[in-house]
Amino acid sequence: QGSQLAPACVGSGLARVNPDLASERLTASFCVPSLTAVLDGGAERTRVRRAVVDVIESDPVFSRENQYFQSQNERYEAAVRKAVHLRKKMQDMGWSEDGPESVYIYRALSGDVAFLLHRVFMRSISVLGSDKQVAKWIPLATEHRLIGSYAQTELGHGTYLQGLETTAVFDISTQEFILNTPTISAMKWWPGDMGRSATHTVVFAQLYIHGKCYGVHPFIVQIRSLQDHSPCPGVIAGDIGPKMNFEHIDNGYLMLKNVRIPRENMLNKFCEVQPDGTYIRHGSQQINYFTMTSLRISLIADEVILPLMKACTIAIRYSVVRRQSKLKPGEEEAKILDYQTQQEKLLPQLAAAYAFHFINNYLHELFNKGYKEIQGRNFALLPELHALSSGFKAMISQYCTSGVDICLRACGGHGYSLLSGLPSLYTKILASCIYEGENTILLLQTARFLIKCFTAARAGQPVPPSVTYLAAMKPRKCPAKDKLDFLSPDIYTEAYQHAAIRLISSTAAKLQDLIQSGAERHEAWNQCTVQLVQAAKAHCHYITVKNFVETVEKLENTAGIQNIMKHLCDLFALHGIFSNAGIFLHDGYITGAQMDMVTASYLDLLGIIRKDAVPLVDAFDFTDKNLNSALGSYDGQVYQRLYEWAQKAPTNKQISPAYEKYLKPLLHNKLSKL
Amino acid sequence: QGSQLAPACVGSGLARVNPDLASERLTASFCVPSLTAVLDGGAERTRVRRAVVDVIESDPVFSRENQYFQSQNERYEAAVRKAVHLRKKMQDMGWSEDGPESVYIYRALSGDVAFLLHRVFMRSISVLGSDKQVAKWIPLATEHRLIGSYAQTELGHGTYLQGLETTAVFDISTQEFILNTPTISAMKWWPGDMGRSATHTVVFAQLYIHGKCYGVHPFIVQIRSLQDHSPCPGVIAGDIGPKMNFEHIDNGYLMLKNVRIPRENMLNKFCEVQPDGTYIRHGSQQINYFTMTSLRISLIADEVILPLMKACTIAIRYSVVRRQSKLKPGEEEAKILDYQTQQEKLLPQLAAAYAFHFINNYLHELFNKGYKEIQGRNFALLPELHALSSGFKAMISQYCTSGVDICLRACGGHGYSLLSGLPSLYTKILASCIYEGENTILLLQTARFLIKCFTAARAGQPVPPSVTYLAAMKPRKCPAKDKLDFLSPDIYTEAYQHAAIRLISSTAAKLQDLIQSGAERHEAWNQCTVQLVQAAKAHCHYITVKNFVETVEKLENTAGIQNIMKHLCDLFALHGIFSNAGIFLHDGYITGAQMDMVTASYLDLLGIIRKDAVPLVDAFDFTDKNLNSALGSYDGQVYQRLYEWAQKAPTNKQISPAYEKYLKPLLHNKLSKL
Repeated sequence: QGSQLAPACVGSGLARVNPDLASERLTASFCVPSLTAVLDGGAERTRVRRAVVDVIESDPVFSRENQYFQSQNERYEAAVRKAVHLRKKMQDMGWSEDGPESVYIYRALSGDVAFLLHRVFMRSISVLGSDKQVAKWIPLATEHRLIGSYAQTELGHGTYLQGLETTAVFDISTQEFILNTPTISAMKWWPGDMGRSATHTVVFAQLYIHGKCYGVHPFIVQIRSLQDHSPCPGVIAGDIGPKMNFEHIDNGYLMLKNVRIPRENMLNKFCEVQPDGTYIRHGSQQINYFTMTSLRISLIADEVILPLMKACTIAIRYSVVRRQSKLKPGEEEAKILDYQTQQEKLLPQLAAAYAFHFINNYLHELFNKGYKEIQGRNFALLPELHALSSGFKAMISQYCTSGVDICLRACGGHGYSLLSGLPSLYTKILASCIYEGENTILLLQTARFLIKCFTAARAGQPVPPSVTYLAAMKPRKCPAKDKLDFLSPDIYTEAYQHAAIRLISSTAAKLQDLIQSGAERHEAWNQCTVQLVQAAKAHCHYITVKNFVETVEKLENTAGIQNIMKHLCDLFALHGIFSNAGIFLHDGYITGAQMDMVTASYLDLLGIIRKDAVPLVDAFDFTDKNLNSALGSYDGQVYQRLYEWAQKAPTNKQISPAYEKYLKPLLHNKLSKL
Repeated sequence: QGSQLAPACVGSGLARVNPDLASERLTASFCVPSLTAVLDGGAERTRVRRAVVDVIESDPVFSRENQYFQSQNERYEAAVRKAVHLRKKMQDMGWSEDGPESVYIYRALSGDVAFLLHRVFMRSISVLGSDKQVAKWIPLATEHRLIGSYAQTELGHGTYLQGLETTAVFDISTQEFILNTPTISAMKWWPGDMGRSATHTVVFAQLYIHGKCYGVHPFIVQIRSLQDHSPCPGVIAGDIGPKMNFEHIDNGYLMLKNVRIPRENMLNKFCEVQPDGTYIRHGSQQINYFTMTSLRISLIADEVILPLMKACTIAIRYSVVRRQSKLKPGEEEAKILDYQTQQEKLLPQLAAAYAFHFINNYLHELFNKGYKEIQGRNFALLPELHALSSGFKAMISQYCTSGVDICLRACGGHGYSLLSGLPSLYTKILASCIYEGENTILLLQTARFLIKCFTAARAGQPVPPSVTYLAAMKPRKCPAKDKLDFLSPDIYTEAYQHAAIRLISSTAAKLQDLIQSGAERHEAWNQCTVQLVQAAKAHCHYITVKNFVETVEKLENTAGIQNIMKHLCDLFALHGIFSNAGIFLHDGYITGAQMDMVTASYLDLLGIIRKDAVPLVDAFDFTDKNLNSALGSYDGQVYQRLYEWAQKAPTNKQISPAYEKYLKPLLHNKLSKL
């Protein structure tokens, strides 16, 4: 209770809190609960979220207390137990899958639960299935009468969907599809919930009718018996073994040998195979990508931004408890957050967490709009949505992964202990750079869209709203005269816009040059990809800064919220210029002297935000149980907790057999002392 | 046998190798065994190394086959078993601790062995102990009649040695030191081999005589009984629990309560407490730091550079087996290493591995020279040695950690599987950024040395050889006219030198300005630290480039070695300019147009080195067992190996109890199929 409800702007109830940490909360320039409400999207949502958290955390089945000590088998078993218990809990509490609580449940569990791919299974049926298919499968799945998975990736094939090798051949005589895994590289590999749990899965396979290939389509395939869970005939399935994280998920493999499924099991909202083998398409081929677009956007908040918020909370709280070396001779050792280098590591990550929280809101609005249009079979928004979801998934996951890494290292040795909570945050967020589209490939998809739009915009043709800026003519030089000018959002937003346009236009020009000097189109493209990736990142960075600025403008300045958000927005923007100086200096848009002003303002901001650093992470409102970190608790009792938690480690619960077997024969001495 | 001896420049015996990988070896521009000999420092050393590897790898006790499936307890037990067996093996083979084989033993074991801190224990006694102490303790330690550890770091105190809280009070009446842990933050925390194995340890504690503190000194303390391994009176010790890696090491904690040790147990080569309590210093106080300097340099090769070499080997071999998407329409899917973006990820890491291998040789030469001087009680070289070992430990570990991370991510999903070998390389190398001095603190120590030397050099005073360049006056503009000019070592070495001087001099000027405008010295220093870190990195980067250039010049151009090394040197240098463009553009030393030339030459080099990428990693000469990677084996049978290894996972060796307990009640249906 205490921790997440403590009104940090009042400064009461801090009696047992580490005094170094408590003092940080007395001087907040803004009201913490007000900022929490802004982040939640309103005080009512905060209330709902906390209610969910309370229910989940007070139930011992959902405890994560021993998580850092568990084996892969133990993690899996606990995750299944939690998933099954959760369904019951939701019934008891009257929480539904689309109720206001649903978004907070997974978050309260820190994702440490099974059957997440079961939800993707359901979503793909909802999006790609006909009304009849939805009516048949969704109730079964909702009641957990089956466990579903989503089998797209193969051992030899990832993001390039067209390369999938699994085949589904239509047999007119039996009105069935016959599914096969023709080679070892065609084996499905990685799907979650498939290694040990799933009874069914959506398999993506090349559809063949009368020997003609119609490309990749989704099929519902049963893989395990509902009587005894044994593999269905022709199915070989298992667990792919240990990973860097996700021990609680049974990522699996699947081989299919002449597995027959009825014609009705092809998901056929957008295309259909009729009994005589006639193939009919009802919509865009691109719709197959829509599940991925939807997944990419849905994972950004919980899998990418929240881990960075947690890492910032842990590292910043620890950095005001930890003292090392002296800032002034004769004084006591200084809080490490008072060192400029420590501020420069952590505070830009904090600013980024806020920046990405706001851009995530923007992406969700855009997605909801697009989803409605698609329901009405209007696919016009798909290209922009695909480009933005790809680029932002890549940019945000890469940035946040690096941010968590920085937080971990900034905690020194103790950050490296699993008990800090940081290693598991890192190893988990790292996967977000790879799954649902490898980041480089995603950025190149965004780049392809940008080059196309740039060409169109320069030819005076209409382009989607997010890229209209490509048509604009801009001044050639940054007008800033002193370091304070760089605290003007217009100044830095223009700089980002200029950099994005320059990178896109210069790469478009290089591409054109190569083609004109005789290179084939695909080869020219390949020779530009390093720069295209840069351009796509610059575009996303620009949109993020612009959106942060607009968000801050819309905030009311009650309780000091707008002020502190403005500082964070400035910091995010100037950190980006400072760390990517070459991009801005390249054509002299920003001069060396101006870059010194950027640096000066940037370093000044560190000192300003330093004062509010703890209240700014308190506003994320994580409970101690949710953080699960010996370093990051609300009370700052870092050393005591490390010591207590270490006692519980399995390494302290048994005398190692290694002593009797190996050490005793070596060391034993009649005298106990030397 | 086969793998490490395969003469890649001949191209025979590749029958069972994946054809995509085999074809890469047929076109090498240089002789692979010749390059291996260069890396080893001569063909004789290659022979010795391979002999050691053969002996270790043919002994099943040293197998790492199940490593990725083991718990912390299992890893520890295996590591102790290996350490004990190793001692016997060395006796059988006639290998001594200082013989030519010794350097290769630990490497052949991939560090997966216990009692590494026992070696640090011995080294600290050798360096800091009197002849009498060496004569007493070293034979006992050599024979493993005791297991030593090295207890410096405390729960609340890391790199700042002066802040240690553990006390050692001299009791004249008994001629003993009384050791105490006065607070929880004074508990020793992290020392390896201490959690479960060690019987003795070197404890660093504040020495008190007659109530006066003489600062931190090293003491030999017995912590466990030699009869039954129980803790000695007043000792509380245990394991600190799970970490991101190093499960095989029992990092421990230690509390001391009135633990008495004889006066003879203070290591007293450089200072001494006489029976009447008189304190005598025989050498520089700085000598206490020498063990750390020595450790920092000794870990760079095995703990930092080798992991990067392994990661490059795995990722590059995998990248010519893995195919994805099409480079040309209508063709088969392309090897991912043929994509410019993949080259740009991996090949600079490969170049860095070579660059750091050569700078490591340079550091070792310098260290050996310094060590001889110190033996003769001449401490003049210590400051330069300390500055270089600090800066290079930080710069190389940070660079290589990032390199391993890049290699891991470049392998997509399969890189994330523990079976790729990459996650454990990453989680282990990451620790090198933290242990033996946190990197930021180390870089600031280098910066302090640089600022001091810069001031001296500008005043015309003599400075150590590595920093004489700070006195030089240099041209203001890079003279390059076209992209080929940037393949001239003079051009890019000058650019690095210029950048280092600029960063050091501008930060020195800022420091001066702040002090002149009234800031206190320590506060001014703190306000410059972000830029000081940049300056220290630029210095180390410059020295690395310069040393690579000089190494290439000294190579004979037989067997194509010098040519390919020149390309790698160019790539390392231009990658650094491309990725840190702002530093070079800032004052116009390199113009935007010249930066485009750098980019063009850099991207061209990727294409050139791409052709030799596989032979360049083959030259590192890792055996399959040493790599322990399903993705990186010599034969390139990636998918088969992933599938076979996954079968051995504990998750596939039992039906999870989760089925009976949780899934069956949910799923069971009289009909097996839906």
